[in-house]
Amino acid sequence: MKLYRPTEECGIFGIYGHPEAANLTYLGLYALQHRGQEACGIVSSDGRSLHVHRSMGLVADVFGDQGIFRNLPGEAAIGHVRYSTTGDSVTKNVQPIKVDYSRGSIAVAHNGNLVNAQMVKDELEAWGSIFQTTMDTEVILHLLATSKQNALEDRIAEALGRLKGAYCLLFLTETRMVAARDPQGFRPLCLGKLGDGWVVASESCALDLIEAEFVREIEPGEVVVITKDGITSHFPLKKDEAAPCIFEFVYFARPDSYIFGKNVYMVRKDFGRQLAREHQVDADIVIPVPDSGVPAALGYAQEAGLPFELGLIRNHYIGRTFIEPQQSIRHFGVKIKLNPVREILEGKRVVVIDDSIVRGTTSRKIVKMVRNAGAKEVHVRISSPPTSYPCYYGIDTPTRKELISSSHTIEEIRRYITADSLGYLSEEGLLQAVGAGKNPYCKACFSGNYPITFPTLAAAPQLDLF
Amino acid sequence: MKLYRPTEECGIFGIYGHPEAANLTYLGLYALQHRGQEACGIVSSDGRSLHVHRSMGLVADVFGDQGIFRNLPGEAAIGHVRYSTTGDSVTKNVQPIKVDYSRGSIAVAHNGNLVNAQMVKDELEAWGSIFQTTMDTEVILHLLATSKQNALEDRIAEALGRLKGAYCLLFLTETRMVAARDPQGFRPLCLGKLGDGWVVASESCALDLIEAEFVREIEPGEVVVITKDGITSHFPLKKDEAAPCIFEFVYFARPDSYIFGKNVYMVRKDFGRQLAREHQVDADIVIPVPDSGVPAALGYAQEAGLPFELGLIRNHYIGRTFIEPQQSIRHFGVKIKLNPVREILEGKRVVVIDDSIVRGTTSRKIVKMVRNAGAKEVHVRISSPPTSYPCYYGIDTPTRKELISSSHTIEEIRRYITADSLGYLSEEGLLQAVGAGKNPYCKACFSGNYPITFPTLAAAPQLDLF
Amino acid sequence: MKLYRPTEECGIFGIYGHPEAANLTYLGLYALQHRGQEACGIVSSDGRSLHVHRSMGLVADVFGDQGIFRNLPGEAAIGHVRYSTTGDSVTKNVQPIKVDYSRGSIAVAHNGNLVNAQMVKDELEAWGSIFQTTMDTEVILHLLATSKQNALEDRIAEALGRLKGAYCLLFLTETRMVAARDPQGFRPLCLGKLGDGWVVASESCALDLIEAEFVREIEPGEVVVITKDGITSHFPLKKDEAAPCIFEFVYFARPDSYIFGKNVYMVRKDFGRQLAREHQVDADIVIPVPDSGVPAALGYAQEAGLPFELGLIRNHYIGRTFIEPQQSIRHFGVKIKLNPVREILEGKRVVVIDDSIVRGTTSRKIVKMVRNAGAKEVHVRISSPPTSYPCYYGIDTPTRKELISSSHTIEEIRRYITADSLGYLSEEGLLQAVGAGKNPYCKACFSGNYPITFPTLAAAPQLDLF
Amino acid sequence: MKLYRPTEECGIFGIYGHPEAANLTYLGLYALQHRGQEACGIVSSDGRSLHVHRSMGLVADVFGDQGIFRNLPGEAAIGHVRYSTTGDSVTKNVQPIKVDYSRGSIAVAHNGNLVNAQMVKDELEAWGSIFQTTMDTEVILHLLATSKQNALEDRIAEALGRLKGAYCLLFLTETRMVAARDPQGFRPLCLGKLGDGWVVASESCALDLIEAEFVREIEPGEVVVITKDGITSHFPLKKDEAAPCIFEFVYFARPDSYIFGKNVYMVRKDFGRQLAREHQVDADIVIPVPDSGVPAALGYAQEAGLPFELGLIRNHYIGRTFIEPQQSIRHFGVKIKLNPVREILEGKRVVVIDDSIVRGTTSRKIVKMVRNAGAKEVHVRISSPPTSYPCYYGIDTPTRKELISSSHTIEEIRRYITADSLGYLSEEGLLQAVGAGKNPYCKACFSGNYPITFPTLAAAPQLDLF
Repeated sequence: MKLYRPTEECGIFGIYGHPEAANLTYLGLYALQHRGQEACGIVSSDGRSLHVHRSMGLVADVFGDQGIFRNLPGEAAIGHVRYSTTGDSVTKNVQPIKVDYSRGSIAVAHNGNLVNAQMVKDELEAWGSIFQTTMDTEVILHLLATSKQNALEDRIAEALGRLKGAYCLLFLTETRMVAARDPQGFRPLCLGKLGDGWVVASESCALDLIEAEFVREIEPGEVVVITKDGITSHFPLKKDEAAPCIFEFVYFARPDSYIFGKNVYMVRKDFGRQLAREHQVDADIVIPVPDSGVPAALGYAQEAGLPFELGLIRNHYIGRTFIEPQQSIRHFGVKIKLNPVREILEGKRVVVIDDSIVRGTTSRKIVKMVRNAGAKEVHVRISSPPTSYPCYYGIDTPTRKELISSSHTIEEIRRYITADSLGYLSEEGLLQAVGAGKNPYCKACFSGNYPITFPTLAAAPQLDLF
Repeated sequence: MKLYRPTEECGIFGIYGHPEAANLTYLGLYALQHRGQEACGIVSSDGRSLHVHRSMGLVADVFGDQGIFRNLPGEAAIGHVRYSTTGDSVTKNVQPIKVDYSRGSIAVAHNGNLVNAQMVKDELEAWGSIFQTTMDTEVILHLLATSKQNALEDRIAEALGRLKGAYCLLFLTETRMVAARDPQGFRPLCLGKLGDGWVVASESCALDLIEAEFVREIEPGEVVVITKDGITSHFPLKKDEAAPCIFEFVYFARPDSYIFGKNVYMVRKDFGRQLAREHQVDADIVIPVPDSGVPAALGYAQEAGLPFELGLIRNHYIGRTFIEPQQSIRHFGVKIKLNPVREILEGKRVVVIDDSIVRGTTSRKIVKMVRNAGAKEVHVRISSPPTSYPCYYGIDTPTRKELISSSHTIEEIRRYITADSLGYLSEEGLLQAVGAGKNPYCKACFSGNYPITFPTLAAAPQLDLF
Repeated sequence: MKLYRPTEECGIFGIYGHPEAANLTYLGLYALQHRGQEACGIVSSDGRSLHVHRSMGLVADVFGDQGIFRNLPGEAAIGHVRYSTTGDSVTKNVQPIKVDYSRGSIAVAHNGNLVNAQMVKDELEAWGSIFQTTMDTEVILHLLATSKQNALEDRIAEALGRLKGAYCLLFLTETRMVAARDPQGFRPLCLGKLGDGWVVASESCALDLIEAEFVREIEPGEVVVITKDGITSHFPLKKDEAAPCIFEFVYFARPDSYIFGKNVYMVRKDFGRQLAREHQVDADIVIPVPDSGVPAALGYAQEAGLPFELGLIRNHYIGRTFIEPQQSIRHFGVKIKLNPVREILEGKRVVVIDDSIVRGTTSRKIVKMVRNAGAKEVHVRISSPPTSYPCYYGIDTPTRKELISSSHTIEEIRRYITADSLGYLSEEGLLQAVGAGKNPYCKACFSGNYPITFPTLAAAPQLDLF
Repeated sequence: MKLYRPTEECGIFGIYGHPEAANLTYLGLYALQHRGQEACGIVSSDGRSLHVHRSMGLVADVFGDQGIFRNLPGEAAIGHVRYSTTGDSVTKNVQPIKVDYSRGSIAVAHNGNLVNAQMVKDELEAWGSIFQTTMDTEVILHLLATSKQNALEDRIAEALGRLKGAYCLLFLTETRMVAARDPQGFRPLCLGKLGDGWVVASESCALDLIEAEFVREIEPGEVVVITKDGITSHFPLKKDEAAPCIFEFVYFARPDSYIFGKNVYMVRKDFGRQLAREHQVDADIVIPVPDSGVPAALGYAQEAGLPFELGLIRNHYIGRTFIEPQQSIRHFGVKIKLNPVREILEGKRVVVIDDSIVRGTTSRKIVKMVRNAGAKEVHVRISSPPTSYPCYYGIDTPTRKELISSSHTIEEIRRYITADSLGYLSEEGLLQAVGAGKNPYCKACFSGNYPITFPTLAAAPQLDLF
């Protein structure tokens, strides 16, 4: 049995009420490109019908031709960027999905992952539905089409009531745009305004680019309906305890974004400060693993009173293919991306800051690289707790077997990556830095405590199939 | 309301029980390329799941990479070529369509056109189905998925029972291939054998290429189920009067194919002979409009005792785009394809044989071209009756407004195309040449007598939307 | 030492004095596409400078974008199509070549092959010239640049005086177009008129397409200079015995072209007639190997009083790549291009007409194909004498080793291709059919008598390196 | 008259004596991609002949296919990356250039710009040379080919003796690699060792990537000849005063490279420190314009005792095309690349560090962006003196008219960019920071004192044509 490939690591954007809706959606996706580099798409509405352009590739490549926008007319549009989690990169899995149903046409863009998708799919198939993609998102449209409700928002509410998992959704019909966020608010979603038009985006950096005004975040469990008569807010779903994904702060979101009530850069700096308090070390300089480790490294350096330096230089021209020499025993993996600056590192006791360790292989190469460049000591500090459990709510993590910290002690990891010392930010430190009250974040990847349990044992094999 | 774009002018091919199923399907599609140059696709089964590769483009381009076949494993495969009828050439409308439903996966390839697709779609949508393409073929899969029958063949039979129109279908599941032809047998479909494997193709020329043995034609109303245990034949549908499309003989099929019990080349020659009997003229030579008019011209020449010559030379390197000079008043349309041979035509009374006249503009250019090359007289002979009515069963014809013979007398057409004389093959002559008994062919395009009427008045607007 | 790759099998076209010069050149190349399908290019002049667009690919693909013509402004242009003789298809070998030299810019397009190119290149290199391509054509530009003459036509005359071999050349400078044909006139070249502009083309079919008037052929040894003041003709080279390539008639030129004073189609028909007189056989039908064998087959059939039929149907959608099944023992080579019509061939004694036999492998497959389709006897007739010697003047022929008739008797060839009988047109019959006096054609490929001998023994190895 | 397009902003790489020469060259070009993103190429030698692959595009795209390296065999290779200075991006101007001449084949890759190229070209053309590109590099090969010397190094020396300007050159013949640097050493070039093989590269970061050992810099005026017998060093040219380009430190080279005896990152940090000493200001934070301003900003912050923050976040997914909304008055230029972090900037007095101001438009947008994000004061500090004069030695700078500092005072520029204060690093400070003695750097772009004057007044128009 083929299981769903989770719709992981995506970004969504929508705009309603602007004469250049599709072009601005393209810009919004541009700003959200870090949330998904594999594929992208836009659906626009001209008030009478929906228009689609979707393809594998980066936003700048897929939409790099002015002519495309002539085929995406109208004053409303939604868009989607998707990350490649597996080799199964079939074009038909590109979003937004657009379908015809009894009330006309509707398109949807989804960021997140439904945990009961297979179960709902089984029910729908038993009833007679056919599925043309392997995306859990398709389930949502089937539920919406088979709803007995009349009003669009009631159909959406009924469909969402059947779903379990993480979702930020953008729907577009001929005349309406609807945004929805799951009751626990795993993924970020914000609302903005541009002239008379409304904008919805995964992160505020997309509003910034098009110079839209940030209005507020869409709340967990909220459904926002936008028509030409304005905007209405609904809370049709059962309330639940909020569980925003703390990994958005650690790694995924852009530092200039404002999500879950905070600026990402500032939170990362505070992670670094807290890390410095928890894992002090006698050292000469602090360097980040660029680019994700930079804010935490600045925080660490400031707190520890050590100089911050860019000891590893990143090559910005990495292509999507990389042809390695065939006969060489060398493996270029990390070297092609990073190069150490000997003059900074030579003879120094170096603190290297990274946001996480997954398999440990990259960290090991970086430690060796820094040491070969002359560092006397290499102390690795990680601005998050050990990642021991896979995510089922929209972050692409490997299986437990591949997560080094799920099977090794910190000392074992330190020895593997050949660091002189290794320190992870504690879970308490993390929460304290983010200013959390007692339990408002999903930190299942650290703790294994999943806020949403899987509906049946039958779904268990899925856990290992990501 | 968006109406269905008819799935017109297609070719289908399938093979079951051969280790190189996908590669042979590619070859089969190659041989059927004349039935559709816009897009193509193959779905293969490895016994456990289905694999898809589809794209806009010619077969040789879409499958021009050996690596593709590694991604199409298995001993069974079906394929499809499609002709572009409109500018709406969206990738998602490429066939075969593959879906998941309650019993697993199924793919379908369709040649023909359903006349009650919109009505069935409306019912399905009312019931809760969603539609992801604008192809009438998708309706078939929905019907199959919502059937309450258990066995695949019963589901297919129930689905087909709901359909009206022209269809040759190939279904592929993980373990079975099913071929079906509508009760009136509008489109050709034949069965072949290659070693232990079975082959199904729109035309026998596809069997020839892969050196499969021609077994027989699939009969009107027949459903053939092929499994690893062998082949079974079913006739689940109400019998109807056969109505094979006579235009396949006139124009569409390849001359080396054997369809509807006859060889196409021979039938075309007989059209030419009969045409000579009906429309004799004092002339010096007979020339065809290449390539479609060649067999009829040979027949005409033999019957009339006149020399056959290739007075018009075809350029075989026509690309899909053609950039015309901007400032010129010349229009290169036909000239880019055909060039007359002055030495053949000069001073001669020339009979020009073509298979049909659609708008008349091409014929007009050809007559002028032949006359400019020195012909003393130009007599146009058409190896079919005037085409006055559009086809709704799978041939791409323009609307009535564009069909010159729907609004002009033969004498008016003659004047328009500037020929010295013009003769069409009579309907009786056509039927006699094809050896038909009283009524066994669909000749709606000539007579306007449609063998299947449209289900409701509501569908009427569709007639003008082709 | 790297030897020159001969510039074989090309077509050239030029126009002077037309506001859409580049676009008409594109059309002219379109008509000449059969002379070279590998690469093409156009150079235009706007009166002040030259503009270039060249690439690998068919004319329709390389110039399939209106925007390209905006970058090829001006009222004069020359173009070139080239055939791929080897795998060494480097972009830089695409013509026309454009260079800067002391008098400004000049471009050249060349059809033919210089036999003393290596010797002249050696001299030029010794003198200090550098070569950026492996085309013999580059030698011509070096000679022109190093000439001490003042006037362009004198420089060209001096350069041509150094060359031995076959050439039709088109030069373009900022203000002039010059056409030149070698003293023996191996390759065809004709002059036309379009409004006030002048046109030069390898074959008259290119004039026909743009509706230019055929004026006359450019004569062997003639240099035609076209400026805004009109056209002048020069004969600066030593006269020599004419030796037009008879293979242009046999195979290479388009049947609708008029070259060497005759229409190609008519000559081919006469080859067929003569072949019938020389090699009569009791048979039922005559079929051509399409498309090249069609006129000769018509001639044969008319002379022999036998019916002409299209017993082999050609697939017109052959792509440039063809993926064969891996595990099959079948080899699809010819089958992918041709399919027999059983109904025509069954039980018949068949005469198959082809224009030539090169390696014999294709003929062998065709004979088997015809016999498998039911033919009782298969008699092969070839409308030219055995091709036993390679061409050094612009036709792409294999080395002697590969030419079956260079090492086998006709009876041995007959046995190899499994024909019931085999007949070649005699050399005398060929010349008689073409209406030649005693010696006016180059027929080195049949006789081994090369009209131009190679300059030194040193060049001998070149003979085997084609 | 068409003037030379200067071969500006390039990177070169070569390796001799390694079985994967071409693949390592590809890696070296990867590391040098920042020196030219428009086009690239590699020429390899297998000991008998040279092999070429060149194209427009990034290294990762042009060489993103393992198969290419099978066509680049041999143990020696040179490569080139080129920056697009104008729209005239013709393929034929891609380097390395490979030619045949009297001694065999030779290829060359060039970084720099010859100031007497037009004059030498005129002489060569008068003598009879033809030019197939518009690159000044082609002149070098002509000189080499026309030299009367016997040994390759003597020919090269004679050719170099004729050249004026900036050049780092890599030559490759069938059996040798030669590196040459102009007597004033404008551009960097270094020598490395990998196993038994020798490596030459524009910057040391390319050695780092392939894990080659840095041996030393190639000296101004030095010619290094590498054969299978080893390496020899020659100084055939008249000595001149060294004039390495200080702008390599300011902006062009990668921070992890070691050039002109120093590490670039460290020099940039010292520029920042010196800038802090020269232009102190009461402020709260220091932010760089990423990525080029980062090291100087770190130096400034450390010297000034102010916190360093990443107040502007760079989008790393900028594509090569960017489709702006058509109807909007907004211009997205800088916004698409940079986004401010409000939480860092709000209420702060901000020092913004950039490496240079060219037209002023980007600085103006950045100042406004920072101020809109809430900054109370915006103080711009530039880590180099005002750039008032164009470069003729290999850096792509606009004409004087476009350089804002060539026509405006610092106060005028400050007002234009709307900064609260503006400070440039002084020329003395720059030289002091770089540890220069009295005059060892070319700083013509600041001072207008060009170390090499143009050969004739005739060349003057070139100055404005860049």
